[in-house]
Amino acid sequence: MPAPVASLDLLERVRAGDRFALGRLITRAEVGGAEVRSALAQAYRTAGSAHVVGITGVPGSGKSSLISRLAQEVRRDGRTVAIIAIDPSSPFSGGAILGDRIRMGELGLDAGVFIRSMATRGASGGLAGATLAVADVMDSAGFDLIVIETVGVGQDEVEIVRASHTTVVVSAPGLGDDVQAIKAGILEIADIHAVSKCDRPDAARTLADLNAMLALGSAVGAPSAWRVPVLATSAQSGEGVREMLSAIDAHRTALRASELGPERARRVAEYRALKTAEDLLRAQFTSARNANLAGLVERVTRRELDPFTAAETLLSNATF
Amino acid sequence: MPAPVASLDLLERVRAGDRFALGRLITRAEVGGAEVRSALAQAYRTAGSAHVVGITGVPGSGKSSLISRLAQEVRRDGRTVAIIAIDPSSPFSGGAILGDRIRMGELGLDAGVFIRSMATRGASGGLAGATLAVADVMDSAGFDLIVIETVGVGQDEVEIVRASHTTVVVSAPGLGDDVQAIKAGILEIADIHAVSKCDRPDAARTLADLNAMLALGSAVGAPSAWRVPVLATSAQSGEGVREMLSAIDAHRTALRASELGPERARRVAEYRALKTAEDLLRAQFTSARNANLAGLVERVTRRELDPFTAAETLLSNATF
Repeated sequence: MPAPVASLDLLERVRAGDRFALGRLITRAEVGGAEVRSALAQAYRTAGSAHVVGITGVPGSGKSSLISRLAQEVRRDGRTVAIIAIDPSSPFSGGAILGDRIRMGELGLDAGVFIRSMATRGASGGLAGATLAVADVMDSAGFDLIVIETVGVGQDEVEIVRASHTTVVVSAPGLGDDVQAIKAGILEIADIHAVSKCDRPDAARTLADLNAMLALGSAVGAPSAWRVPVLATSAQSGEGVREMLSAIDAHRTALRASELGPERARRVAEYRALKTAEDLLRAQFTSARNANLAGLVERVTRRELDPFTAAETLLSNATF
Repeated sequence: MPAPVASLDLLERVRAGDRFALGRLITRAEVGGAEVRSALAQAYRTAGSAHVVGITGVPGSGKSSLISRLAQEVRRDGRTVAIIAIDPSSPFSGGAILGDRIRMGELGLDAGVFIRSMATRGASGGLAGATLAVADVMDSAGFDLIVIETVGVGQDEVEIVRASHTTVVVSAPGLGDDVQAIKAGILEIADIHAVSKCDRPDAARTLADLNAMLALGSAVGAPSAWRVPVLATSAQSGEGVREMLSAIDAHRTALRASELGPERARRVAEYRALKTAEDLLRAQFTSARNANLAGLVERVTRRELDPFTAAETLLSNATF
């Protein structure tokens, strides 16, 4: 059996446009480990050309259809796009749960489009770090735009979206207060609001609600270099999709022209350093090398020891 | 101004039945810090009498109404119950988002019922650890049953439910595949399935689906000391609520009579020790004491340094 290709060699091939190598390196980035780390580190250092867009919205909000349309608009400009789907119910994830509502076939055959889905509950718990590392690899492959699709629920998912350059929150009219409530926490992180299915009569109310919310926010907040737009879109007719891409590009320009860009870059860098440290720590904790763990857990189970003292002991015994 | 009461003194009052002290100590547990830690450590060591039930289901599944009914059944037995709501859309959380669909008034006036809501996105990120510490405090207050209500989406929320003794997953008929898909990942962690709104005609299909899923699972899995029941319930008529409480009690008995109990206790203890260690680490990272952080982040921002090397440096410089 031939020796497996080194990840650094795969990265070279990725840079040369090898899509097969791209898929392999992404798989290694998902799994993690020491071997792939140097390649991912190098990918990070040379990344930064692509614009990373986080698009979020609850299942049923129509964000997958909208992303599909957006990808077509990006291609119409001659630009390339890579999509990372983290929503398990997304049709980009193979539609294992919901079936193939959207025909991604034509997009998938285009070499200027690359689609990859990631599991939301990895064994290592390092979803956010892995996703951002995958984005770096896609950046190395030369994609102009990288779209990260998440369901926008759960701390990890929200943090992934916050770690992108531009955040688009998709809201559907009439989805019901119950479902909308899930994402109340993500409305505030939007750089762009997109109301989907705007051909429906109840879309006007959703648009009005979002505009009212933003008016309230800007009345009390400090003036900003970016004014969050609320766009009426329809994946069915294509309405508003070009405007959505224009808004994404405008936001990118605003980031570069103002203090917002460096601020966000610093926040993302801090997040990535800390998140990676957490992932490394978790891997160490759960590794068999920490011989103390079993004994400590036994004592915590018997309530002789509390979790706080156990945690302090774990940390003081860990070697980094 | 008098000196604030020490948390250890508050814990003594909590044990004596002081509900005001209970509220105060819970608030301190949520905020965290060194002062409250010794009280929480002591609460943990002496806890273990209460039965902790995690009840999960997406917003709209009817779990809050069901919990309200369950609390009444618990009271009917002369037992006491404390409820921790982590779902921001839960009416137990004050109904700030959805309004007061359920009248919790009559429950709230009963000294045998204690209801507390917790924010899902705390600044510290230590939601799971804080929630379980609050459960220990409620255990110290002598409640027989502690119900933790979560929306069941997001890693933290799932882990909280996994850290309870008995997990109930609530599914509503006809909520739509989109919404059900969000929680595909939590179906497998159920010790008890409750189908809500069973007076609706489409409830039969949801019951059948869950039973089919379980039959499939038990056909391939090892025989277990516990057979997961699927219960038809209705918060409106009260149907199936007594059966749900009986199933919770039966599961508790099964845990105690078999190897399942010690297994789960060990898993929860391990989870709490590791989660607490993570929380402590995160607090240290984000504290100003780590003078290195700003410089490292600056270099990561400029892409001179990758997140992996930065993380390793952070860990090697941290003092625990």
